[in-house]
Amino acid sequence: MSGFNWNVKADDIKRVVVIGGVAAGMSAASQAKRRRKDLEVVVLEATGDVSYGSCGIPYNVEDIEKDPESLVVLTAQQFREKRGLDVRLMHRAMRIDPEAREVYVHDLVNDREVVLGYDTLVYGTGASAVMPPWPGRDGKGVFTVRTLHDARLMKHYIKVNSPHRAVIVGGGYIGMEFSETFRTLGMDVTVIEKMPHIVPGLEPEIREKIEEELARNEVTVKTGESVTEIVLDSQSVVKAVRTDRGQYPADLVLVAVGVKPNASLAAQAGAELGARGAVLVDEYLRTSVPRMFAAGDCATHYHRITGRQEFVPLGTTSNKQGRISGANAAGFQERFTGIVGTSVFKVFGLEVAMTGLGRAAMNELGFSYAAAHIDGRTRAHSYHGAKPIRIWMAGDTSDARLIGAQMVGGEGVSKRIDILAAALYGSYTVHDVANLDLAYAPPFSPVWDPVLVAANVLRKKLPYRLSV
Amino acid sequence: MSGFNWNVKADDIKRVVVIGGVAAGMSAASQAKRRRKDLEVVVLEATGDVSYGSCGIPYNVEDIEKDPESLVVLTAQQFREKRGLDVRLMHRAMRIDPEAREVYVHDLVNDREVVLGYDTLVYGTGASAVMPPWPGRDGKGVFTVRTLHDARLMKHYIKVNSPHRAVIVGGGYIGMEFSETFRTLGMDVTVIEKMPHIVPGLEPEIREKIEEELARNEVTVKTGESVTEIVLDSQSVVKAVRTDRGQYPADLVLVAVGVKPNASLAAQAGAELGARGAVLVDEYLRTSVPRMFAAGDCATHYHRITGRQEFVPLGTTSNKQGRISGANAAGFQERFTGIVGTSVFKVFGLEVAMTGLGRAAMNELGFSYAAAHIDGRTRAHSYHGAKPIRIWMAGDTSDARLIGAQMVGGEGVSKRIDILAAALYGSYTVHDVANLDLAYAPPFSPVWDPVLVAANVLRKKLPYRLSV
Repeated sequence: MSGFNWNVKADDIKRVVVIGGVAAGMSAASQAKRRRKDLEVVVLEATGDVSYGSCGIPYNVEDIEKDPESLVVLTAQQFREKRGLDVRLMHRAMRIDPEAREVYVHDLVNDREVVLGYDTLVYGTGASAVMPPWPGRDGKGVFTVRTLHDARLMKHYIKVNSPHRAVIVGGGYIGMEFSETFRTLGMDVTVIEKMPHIVPGLEPEIREKIEEELARNEVTVKTGESVTEIVLDSQSVVKAVRTDRGQYPADLVLVAVGVKPNASLAAQAGAELGARGAVLVDEYLRTSVPRMFAAGDCATHYHRITGRQEFVPLGTTSNKQGRISGANAAGFQERFTGIVGTSVFKVFGLEVAMTGLGRAAMNELGFSYAAAHIDGRTRAHSYHGAKPIRIWMAGDTSDARLIGAQMVGGEGVSKRIDILAAALYGSYTVHDVANLDLAYAPPFSPVWDPVLVAANVLRKKLPYRLSV
Repeated sequence: MSGFNWNVKADDIKRVVVIGGVAAGMSAASQAKRRRKDLEVVVLEATGDVSYGSCGIPYNVEDIEKDPESLVVLTAQQFREKRGLDVRLMHRAMRIDPEAREVYVHDLVNDREVVLGYDTLVYGTGASAVMPPWPGRDGKGVFTVRTLHDARLMKHYIKVNSPHRAVIVGGGYIGMEFSETFRTLGMDVTVIEKMPHIVPGLEPEIREKIEEELARNEVTVKTGESVTEIVLDSQSVVKAVRTDRGQYPADLVLVAVGVKPNASLAAQAGAELGARGAVLVDEYLRTSVPRMFAAGDCATHYHRITGRQEFVPLGTTSNKQGRISGANAAGFQERFTGIVGTSVFKVFGLEVAMTGLGRAAMNELGFSYAAAHIDGRTRAHSYHGAKPIRIWMAGDTSDARLIGAQMVGGEGVSKRIDILAAALYGSYTVHDVANLDLAYAPPFSPVWDPVLVAANVLRKKLPYRLSV
């Protein structure tokens, strides 16, 4: 990545321009200003909203009377007053001229063009929800959920129309979370997934628990079916979803089939693209265009286990990359050390989490591995309220290193996966994991925490090797 | 530790004798037999009980009608039948002859001496509760809680006498846990601690939250007071605890002022002793006596941060050391990689946990450090039910490494400390911690988990350095 090896002297930086005002963008802008009070930091946001937690949308929608604005962490005005940022709402960046170091901006309020010079630029435009070109996709009652405005529209529709039957197209994380949201709101829920299974990337040992939980909560799941059309009535309101195998009545349709990075502006400016068309960055979050950094859901994410720049858009990564790109745009040199593929979601009474690689990725990358799974309990048998937990774990048969883990259970899953995320960061072996000095008291785990039990079972299949 | 560098060929091992049948002992015996079915494995246990979880005693006592036997994980008979172990209850080891490789045993049932040869020996005698030589210490209603039998005696006393006023001598973990137990059982509770503060080792930022919680639950705490006498009535039943500053009426007294390792038998056999008089072991859990391993609460525990063999008796460490000593007694060579000082307890609505070193230990060892604490919430603001959490964290100002962390909060503390315990294992810097790819979804944490927030605040006081 020789084109990435540019630097800007801190003294040459007076103005930082940030394109995009959600997670990565506002983190970058805040960090740049925090590091150097002398900098002018301008944020260009195409919409009227900044800094909202889109991961909270399922829970905001569920609480139907709650104001969607409560998803906003800080308002534009607060960023201006408390953090000294020049936040410009309704300002859409139209073109970047890296030679002249200028951004051409459409001021949507006054409908005029503004040209803004920069010394360093942070590109944080995020990703957009994918909406396949199905007939009927523009009908009333058909939604994606990505932005705060999406949440407003959906809540308004639910309040006005009181839909009874929801069809969710896409059985990924968003689909799982919204199946709970819509059931809580009293709707019948059908999830349609074109792949053979829900939640791609989950191992069958873990997935079967989720399938049981969905069935227990009367969510209908149809896998291996491709949507062909969204059927509308004469008022252009959705009435069904048609697939290659059937038709499902619907008063509300959520399309959650993935996202695509908003990379076009960077690409036009000459930035090299990487995985899934995201803006390729190096470890300092530099793009191939001098003075331009990228961060968040529009950029690539270095994956420590695969050793590649991948596209894994997640809020927590956006915040971290935003912070680092902001520091570096202000003239510092900090490194994004990478992701290990950690994620978690809740679906009804289950917490589901993964980190590292699953079988498909290990096979693709040619790992020789062993895997094991165990069923345990979240608390000591002497303490009340323990819940079941299942842990799947995989290790490298050549060097005993941990490669991946997945969990499903009634409590304590999210933080237990974090233990293994921390272990993956330092390339611990499975024997190291079994030796970790984890906290023990009966209300919090058995004396052998399920994480240690899984490691103890898996290590029997691996050569004995410690990393410390 | 040159005297520790002995080895035994696996082929020379036919019989493993384990002294002690609780956590370390039964783990060692089970592991030795699991690794090598051909071995004869004998367990000598002086009492009638094996393999019980003493950490569960506060919760078993709290549930007053629950059978104390439910603390037993597996019975002696189950170890015999399911694991093929020769478990001998009421067999007290009296003397070890390392030259002849024999243990002299008092069979308490038949009141006779038995001499038992061994090829390797695992010394796992545990620790005993300290009872200072106070007048009245033998009175009725005065207890320590260490063994299953202690739990039986206390529960019987509570059932028969319905005590109203409990005095707990010792404000450590056991004292904290039992203050909840006794309050739950409806007693007035006074905790007397001779040190200036409860829970030695806790930083003031964390401790103040516990003091508030104890006050909120009407537990009276007296610090800086030394017990001088336990006052008994004419029936030798406790009626008060006298200190150097006052007298406290009591129908039940729990003395929880620490434990001492049961090392005398090993010492008589020539084993070198270490911290606090525990049996000194090396990384393979070898003692200085050839063919004798030691494990658990009677042994020393290598501490990765101090680099020393310390005495930190905890159930989870006993199980790990037991497992490793058992494997090594069977002829394998596995390493105990050490503790990092992790522990957790629950007191009423709070979880309290620590890992690594606190200020006192850092000062003693000459660390140059910076510390910071933050107040956060356990879940995203968009999700209901978040609870407060406070995190204290310290890092080395010379190399930015994490040295210690403590937490107190309403949920998710135990597993959050585990993330940092995993980070300490690999000598991560605080910047590494801030970069960890932790799981995020609104029900489980804010997008910046409090652990990351604490690291981000602390790193500002440290040089920028990553360990990976």
